[in-house]
Amino acid sequence: MARDSTATRERILQAAERLVLEYGFGSTTVDGVVAASGTSKGAFFHHFAGKDDLAKALVARIAAADHHVLAAALDSIAPLTEPTARLLEFLAYFERSADTVTAEESGCLYISVLTERQLIDTGTADQIVAVVHAWRAALTDLIQDAFHGRPPTGIDAERLADHFFVTFEGAFLLSRATGEPHLAAQLRVMRLMVTALLT
Amino acid sequence: MARDSTATRERILQAAERLVLEYGFGSTTVDGVVAASGTSKGAFFHHFAGKDDLAKALVARIAAADHHVLAAALDSIAPLTEPTARLLEFLAYFERSADTVTAEESGCLYISVLTERQLIDTGTADQIVAVVHAWRAALTDLIQDAFHGRPPTGIDAERLADHFFVTFEGAFLLSRATGEPHLAAQLRVMRLMVTALLT
Repeated sequence: MARDSTATRERILQAAERLVLEYGFGSTTVDGVVAASGTSKGAFFHHFAGKDDLAKALVARIAAADHHVLAAALDSIAPLTEPTARLLEFLAYFERSADTVTAEESGCLYISVLTERQLIDTGTADQIVAVVHAWRAALTDLIQDAFHGRPPTGIDAERLADHFFVTFEGAFLLSRATGEPHLAAQLRVMRLMVTALLT
Repeated sequence: MARDSTATRERILQAAERLVLEYGFGSTTVDGVVAASGTSKGAFFHHFAGKDDLAKALVARIAAADHHVLAAALDSIAPLTEPTARLLEFLAYFERSADTVTAEESGCLYISVLTERQLIDTGTADQIVAVVHAWRAALTDLIQDAFHGRPPTGIDAERLADHFFVTFEGAFLLSRATGEPHLAAQLRVMRLMVTALLT
């Protein structure tokens, strides 16, 4: 039964992601991942040094997808030149894609990692911080352009930029708590408030 | 060595809370809690039926504290009569207390519970939902009064009310990811955006 090694790695990652999304990272075991992926312990340790290494690979996959989504959103506003329209259209872009599976996977995996101090200490969270910084930089530029360098009293462009990540993650937790979808609605609340700041 | 039973229960809860805040709920074990609290397995199972029961008790403590904080915030604005001032002062109240330990404990415990599907299924998350609903109801009243029943186009008072919980939890995750304090700054961003909606 020869198996393609890359395919096996991907099967392990997909099974691990399902378990982490369902039970949290702390409750996910190597044995559980091996069983759920229908592979073997030997195959697991061929691809991953251990559970922390698996966590790094899971977060790397999601972080790469998030960097890709950011690039796609920036591409989508490239034809626009008016700074206010560029900022508001960027925000609207995510409202439209808020209820996709990727959004939920990303929010949940980040949260699972950030509740485990040892994953923060061993550097797995660094990839999340890199996503935060990329989004902060892109949004800060859009915000500064929209405010023509003069934001309303008290508003700091970087902190307003961070509010996007905050809204995304907070809305995901609200959805998880209540069992209702909240992401699109909360992104919309933020966009309407930013619109009020601009007028 | 006679011990006061209530004091033992409290010692177990405090040790469990420290472990959950540090390592997440999934990685916290009964044996670890017994060791960290300096009690015994007998004492643990005298007070708690198991780990899920312990989780319920931890969340109950934090939820009670959050209900108390809501009541205190409403008390603090009781002398005010002007609806806009009441809403903005209510929001400002939490900015001032954002960097207290209670705020961090609450955010983290809720997040730890919400990443564990089995804690949601066994009803532990119900207490978090009760907190969400209490805050939603109180803030929706304040928002409707401040908008005199006519919110700006597209703004739904309940969803704007939920944005407070969203900001709180999202900011907590941002702090956790970056190792910087973000809660007060993000609550401030929300307050300034609500101010813009009102003017």
